Amino acid sequence: MVKTEIGYTTPERITVRGKDLANELLGQVDFVDMMLMTIFGHLPSAAEKTMVNHILVTACDHGLTPSAMSARLTYLGAPEAMQAAVAAGLLGAGSVFLGTTQNCAEILAAGGAGLAPEAPQEEVDAAARALMAASREKKQPIYGIGHPIHIDGDPRVPTLRRLARELGYYGKHWRLMEAVQRVFLQDKGKNLPMNAVGAVGAIICDMGLDPMIARGLMLVGRAGGLVAHLYEERQDPIGQQLWDLVLAQDPRNVAPAR
Amino acid sequence: MVKTEIGYTTPERITVRGKDLANELLGQVDFVDMMLMTIFGHLPSAAEKTMVNHILVTACDHGLTPSAMSARLTYLGAPEAMQAAVAAGLLGAGSVFLGTTQNCAEILAAGGAGLAPEAPQEEVDAAARALMAASREKKQPIYGIGHPIHIDGDPRVPTLRRLARELGYYGKHWRLMEAVQRVFLQDKGKNLPMNAVGAVGAIICDMGLDPMIARGLMLVGRAGGLVAHLYEERQDPIGQQLWDLVLAQDPRNVAPAR
Amino acid sequence: MVKTEIGYTTPERITVRGKDLANELLGQVDFVDMMLMTIFGHLPSAAEKTMVNHILVTACDHGLTPSAMSARLTYLGAPEAMQAAVAAGLLGAGSVFLGTTQNCAEILAAGGAGLAPEAPQEEVDAAARALMAASREKKQPIYGIGHPIHIDGDPRVPTLRRLARELGYYGKHWRLMEAVQRVFLQDKGKNLPMNAVGAVGAIICDMGLDPMIARGLMLVGRAGGLVAHLYEERQDPIGQQLWDLVLAQDPRNVAPAR
Amino acid sequence: MVKTEIGYTTPERITVRGKDLANELLGQVDFVDMMLMTIFGHLPSAAEKTMVNHILVTACDHGLTPSAMSARLTYLGAPEAMQAAVAAGLLGAGSVFLGTTQNCAEILAAGGAGLAPEAPQEEVDAAARALMAASREKKQPIYGIGHPIHIDGDPRVPTLRRLARELGYYGKHWRLMEAVQRVFLQDKGKNLPMNAVGAVGAIICDMGLDPMIARGLMLVGRAGGLVAHLYEERQDPIGQQLWDLVLAQDPRNVAPAR
Repeated sequence: MVKTEIGYTTPERITVRGKDLANELLGQVDFVDMMLMTIFGHLPSAAEKTMVNHILVTACDHGLTPSAMSARLTYLGAPEAMQAAVAAGLLGAGSVFLGTTQNCAEILAAGGAGLAPEAPQEEVDAAARALMAASREKKQPIYGIGHPIHIDGDPRVPTLRRLARELGYYGKHWRLMEAVQRVFLQDKGKNLPMNAVGAVGAIICDMGLDPMIARGLMLVGRAGGLVAHLYEERQDPIGQQLWDLVLAQDPRNVAPAR
Repeated sequence: MVKTEIGYTTPERITVRGKDLANELLGQVDFVDMMLMTIFGHLPSAAEKTMVNHILVTACDHGLTPSAMSARLTYLGAPEAMQAAVAAGLLGAGSVFLGTTQNCAEILAAGGAGLAPEAPQEEVDAAARALMAASREKKQPIYGIGHPIHIDGDPRVPTLRRLARELGYYGKHWRLMEAVQRVFLQDKGKNLPMNAVGAVGAIICDMGLDPMIARGLMLVGRAGGLVAHLYEERQDPIGQQLWDLVLAQDPRNVAPAR
Repeated sequence: MVKTEIGYTTPERITVRGKDLANELLGQVDFVDMMLMTIFGHLPSAAEKTMVNHILVTACDHGLTPSAMSARLTYLGAPEAMQAAVAAGLLGAGSVFLGTTQNCAEILAAGGAGLAPEAPQEEVDAAARALMAASREKKQPIYGIGHPIHIDGDPRVPTLRRLARELGYYGKHWRLMEAVQRVFLQDKGKNLPMNAVGAVGAIICDMGLDPMIARGLMLVGRAGGLVAHLYEERQDPIGQQLWDLVLAQDPRNVAPAR
Repeated sequence: MVKTEIGYTTPERITVRGKDLANELLGQVDFVDMMLMTIFGHLPSAAEKTMVNHILVTACDHGLTPSAMSARLTYLGAPEAMQAAVAAGLLGAGSVFLGTTQNCAEILAAGGAGLAPEAPQEEVDAAARALMAASREKKQPIYGIGHPIHIDGDPRVPTLRRLARELGYYGKHWRLMEAVQRVFLQDKGKNLPMNAVGAVGAIICDMGLDPMIARGLMLVGRAGGLVAHLYEERQDPIGQQLWDLVLAQDPRNVAPAR
C-alpha cells in the first residue's frame, strides 16, 4: 500500500503524526516542535529542540553567499515566482556548501562507530587517522576542517561547542572531529581549524540523528535567510548590479552608457 | 555599490543585521527570532513571533500533497542530492497551492486599502464586492475561499481566527476575507467557506507585513515537512510504488512480474 | 483514467506517440523532430522544424547571463549534482528574462485575435494601441520592445525577420509587434526597438503555436547553453571568483590574503 | 579576471565562441550544432552531430516517468511558472535515473583507461572484473546493466549499438560495458542485460567526451519531453488525478464525493 505514516486528511480533519492539526497542534506547539514531530513522529525533548534551534540559527544567513546570489539572480528574471528563487538558492546545498554537514556527519558516524564514548585520546586519534585514510582512498575531501575566510578559526565553533556541552551533545563524534583537526596538524603540519560544518556534523551524530537530518536542517534554516534576501531584493534590488558587475570584468563586454 | 544590509563577514566575525552571529545571536535567539530579524532587521515582538510560529505550523505538512510527491519522486532519482528533492517539493508553491497565500494577501491588501479598521459591515461588504469584481476583471480566481477536500469548512480556520484575535491580528483584512465568503454566498448562492490560505493572507495583512512574506513563510514551513517526507522515503520508500501505481492506470503499460 | 497520450512501455517496447522508440524513431529522426513529435503528436513540416531550430539557436547562450551565473554558483556548492545547476539556471526564465517570450506571445495572440492577415496598417496600429492600453490597465509591461544593452536595436531581430519571411511565418503577429514599436515611438516619442523576445513571440503566434511553447523552447535551448557553462566551470572555474568579486564590493567584508 | 570563453556582448553584437550570433550562427546552424559549438568551441563533425542527436532522442521521453510526474505535480501548483515545472522534472536526474549516464561513463572511462582499443577479450573481461570490484569497494552500484521493466533486454541497446558502429563510436568502452554484462552472468549466474544508460555511457566514452556531457545531454533531451508533458497537462490535465489516485491508496484519507 502506498501511504505515509506522516499524515492523512478527511473533510473534517487533518491528521499529522496521529494528532489533529487544527486542535492539537496549531496553537499548542511552535514550528521547531512541529517540524521535529513531523520528522520523527514524536515531540522533541527540551534539549533536542534547543540544539536544533541553534543549528537552524547557524544555517540561516551569512550575507551574499552563492545561495543568496543565485536566489537574487533568479528573482531578477522571475519575480512572480518567489518559490523558484528560494529553490535556486537551496540547490547548491551539496557536498561543498551547506549540504556538506551531511557528508561530514556521514564520515563521523562511520568513523566513530567503533569508539566507546569514553575512549582514551589515543583511540580517538587512531579513529581520526582511519577516517582520514578512508577519505583519501575514496578521493573525498576531509569534511569539517578549514575555511576560506575564517582561516584562524570559525567563530561559530566555540559557541556551538559550549552549547553542545550544556545540552549534553558533546560526545565521541565531537572528540573525533577535534581529533581530525589535531592529527591533521601533527601529520601534515597544516593548521586547518574545525569549521561550523564540522561542529554541526558532530552535533547531529552526538544527538543520535541520521546524517541526512544535518542537510535537512541547513535547508530549512537557509530557506529563512533566502526569504530575507528576496524581501530586500524586492525593495532595494541589486540583482541587475550583480550582473553588470560581472559583465564589466570582461572588457569585451561593452554596456551602453546609462 | 553592490551590497546587502543583511550582513557581512570578516575572518574573525560574521555579522548579521549588525549583530555578531557567534556571540550575540547563536545561543541567544531561536530560529524564528533569527529568521524574522534577518528579514526585518529587528527582533519580532512576542506576538509577532507567536503568530509566525502558527503560520509555519500551518504550512509544515499535510501528508501526501503534490509537493511531498514531487520531492519523493525526485529523491528516487537522485538520493545523493536531497537539496534537489526539497527544491522540487517547493517549486509548486505558486498561484494554486501554498504560494497562493501571497496572491490572497495581495488582493486583501489592495481591497482593504481604503477601509477604516472599524468600518461598518456594509462598507466591508462593499469592499468585498469590489475585490471580487477586480478579480473577475483580471480573470484571476478569488483566493482564500473554497477547498477541494474541506468542503464544509477548513478545520484550521477557526483555530487561526482565535489565535489571531488573541494576538491582536484580527483586523480589517480578516473582516474583508470573511465578507468575501459571505457576499459570495449571498450573490452567487454558493457556500465556499474560507480556507487556510484566506486565513494566512488575512493574518499577514493584519500584521502589516508585505504579502510576499506570506509565500516566504509557507516555503520555510513546508521545507520542514519535506525533510520529514524524505527521511521517511529513505527508510521506508514509496517513490517506486508511486510510479508503479501511476503506470498501472494505463493498461498499455505492462510491467514484468516481480 | 490517469494516462498520457505521449507514450507507454512494455518489457519489449517503448512507445512514444504511437511509434516504437527503438525501431521507428531512434536512428530515423533527429532531436528537433523527436521533440516536436512528442509535443504535438506528429512530425513537423520542414519549415516548422527549421524555424524551431532558429528559436533554439536564439535561446542557447549569450555569455554570463543571470541564468549562467546561477548555474555556476549552484555548481560551486554541489558539483556532484549537475542537474541542480542546470535547473537553477532555468528557474529565472520568468516574466523578465527568457520566459517573457511566452508573455509576449500571449499579448500578441490576444491582441491579434481580431486582425485579418492582410489588415491595412491603420488597423494593425489600432490593435497595437489596444494591446498597449490593455497592458497598462493590467499593470503589465509591454513585452517585446526595448533592451538594456542593444539600445539601438537587437541584432537578432533582422535575421529572425528574414528567416520568418523565408519560411512563411511572417504574418499578422509580426506586423502587430512592429506596430507596437512604431506606435510607441509616435505616441510616447521614445524609440524602443523590437527585441528578440518580440521576434520569438511573433514567430510562435504566426506559426499558430500555443504561447507556452515559446517559453518551452527557450528552456530547451538554454539548457544546452547551461551545459556549456558547467563544462567550462568544471575545467576553468570562475564560481568562486564571482563570489569574491561580489563580496569585495562591500568594504565591510574582509577576506584573508590568499 | 572573471570571464568566460563562451561569449560576450556589445550593443551591436552578441558573440558566441568568436562568432557573430545574429549573422554567422542564426540561420546558418541548427540547434545541435549550436549547442555543441557552445560547449566545445567548435562545430561538431557530421558523425558527432548525428550521434548526439541519437542520444538526445534516447533521452527525450518515455511516458509517465518520475520526472514527468514531478513536472506535472509542480505545474498543478504553479501554472504561471512553467520553468519551475521543467526544473522540477530535471532535478531527479541523479545517480539512479537519467544522470546515471554520467556515473556509468565515469566508471567506464576509469575502467577502460589502460585498455588498448584492440585488446583481446580476456583483457577486456579482466578490466570488467576490476571495474566491478572497484564499484563493490566504493559501495556503488554497477551502472549500465539491468532494468526494472526491460528485464530481457532494453530495446534501445541494439539500435544504439548499430548506430554507434555505423558512426565509428563502437570502441573499447562499448566492449568493456558488454564485458560487464557477460562477466556478471558468468560470475554471479545472473542475467542483467545492458541498458540504455550503459549504451549512452559507452558512446560518450568512445566519442572521447567528458562523462559530464552524458548527463548534460540527458538533461537537454529530457527538457524537450517535459515541454510535451506540460503542454498536454495544460490541455488535458491529470495532475489532480495523480494526487487523488495516491491519496485513495490510504483508506484513512477520505475525499468528499465529487
